[in-house]
Amino acid sequence: MEITSLQNNKVKYWVSLKQKKQRDLDRVFLIEGNHLVDEALSLGIVKETISTKNKNADYFVTKEIMQKISSQKSISDIAAVCAFLPEAEIKGNILVLDGLQDPGNLGTLIRSSVAFNFETIILSDDSVDLYNDKVIRASEGMIFKTNILRRNLSEFLPEIKGKGYKIIGTDVVKGKPFKEILPEKKIAIVIGNEGNGMSDSVRNLCDEFIKIPMMSNCESLNAAIAGSILMYEAYHE
Amino acid sequence: MEITSLQNNKVKYWVSLKQKKQRDLDRVFLIEGNHLVDEALSLGIVKETISTKNKNADYFVTKEIMQKISSQKSISDIAAVCAFLPEAEIKGNILVLDGLQDPGNLGTLIRSSVAFNFETIILSDDSVDLYNDKVIRASEGMIFKTNILRRNLSEFLPEIKGKGYKIIGTDVVKGKPFKEILPEKKIAIVIGNEGNGMSDSVRNLCDEFIKIPMMSNCESLNAAIAGSILMYEAYHE
Repeated sequence: MEITSLQNNKVKYWVSLKQKKQRDLDRVFLIEGNHLVDEALSLGIVKETISTKNKNADYFVTKEIMQKISSQKSISDIAAVCAFLPEAEIKGNILVLDGLQDPGNLGTLIRSSVAFNFETIILSDDSVDLYNDKVIRASEGMIFKTNILRRNLSEFLPEIKGKGYKIIGTDVVKGKPFKEILPEKKIAIVIGNEGNGMSDSVRNLCDEFIKIPMMSNCESLNAAIAGSILMYEAYHE
Repeated sequence: MEITSLQNNKVKYWVSLKQKKQRDLDRVFLIEGNHLVDEALSLGIVKETISTKNKNADYFVTKEIMQKISSQKSISDIAAVCAFLPEAEIKGNILVLDGLQDPGNLGTLIRSSVAFNFETIILSDDSVDLYNDKVIRASEGMIFKTNILRRNLSEFLPEIKGKGYKIIGTDVVKGKPFKEILPEKKIAIVIGNEGNGMSDSVRNLCDEFIKIPMMSNCESLNAAIAGSILMYEAYHE
């Protein structure tokens, strides 16, 4: 179907998907660009395609319309509305994010988790929305190659402990160097909020604490950097 | 001096410092928040302070004015106009950024460089502006604790080679693992542009190439992650 009017209801709907509220209501999100659309198509989650070039797309639209629905400065030829990602069983090493707020950090951690073979990511209830366009962009398509679940950590962490996971938090004071924590079994590494770190309830559920040695004139690392270094270390053990 | 009008020329000037052009013209930039202002004061680069609370600041302003000059959603009580950071002699390990474009990545790399004791950062001519407010914010104050120079890399890299530095680039194909490159002397690690990597001219000036082992289903890491992991490795050798 061809759409040329910016006032078309479909256009208004796509624009509304910039809001978390609308995404959650319909359990769909919008992606942009060939690379992401191809990945989503191969996963079978695409509900409709929107193109400025291909008349065979579900919706053939003007560049003005694409500009309006896009979250980027320079628009792509193609976009798609996708169903929320399916949840799979928990397996492999786990990255747990406790109150992570920055969408760029989440996207970057998703990318690193695929690179370093952490097969499951758990977002606490109060972490940033997975379908925020900045998360998707920063993940560079890796959002489609992993398993991401949103859970209440106070319930989830005891559950995976029961499955034999060791819960590892970070602590710049009492944390041990990575080498001293022999990952003899599967691990779940917890990264906390950018400003405040882990919540107390999650901290109390940790089996071990780790620290990344660094110069004393730097208080802390960016959350995505800390998480990526720890996953890198675990991958190399 | 107290200012209450949004139309005041001083207010207009502070707003104009959001533009790189104006910053470069006057070689000053604006910072916000107690933490950064304290760091800048201790460095002696503050030209004027602007406060909504302290009548002893150089300029005592309304919250509306602070909102107008601020780049953040939630404003601070204090801001300051600072002179561009002084350049010091090159020393220690060096992080070279070749066409890095994302301000968040630059700020994050500055933060990690202080954590992992890379004492000098070199920005290529075409890298993002150091005084972009997002760079300053992402650096978490570490911008004041390191030495950052902007240079033409085709001239700069041969110069530091002459001073005994080994230039190390990244290459996902022919790069060696970090352990194989014995850092017997001082090193300069090069991180390239987010989309395109290093430029050919810089690549040709590298003495060695390194790679970060990762899963084959992930093409690459975020530039700030890659740079931080390499600095972390160098710091731990």
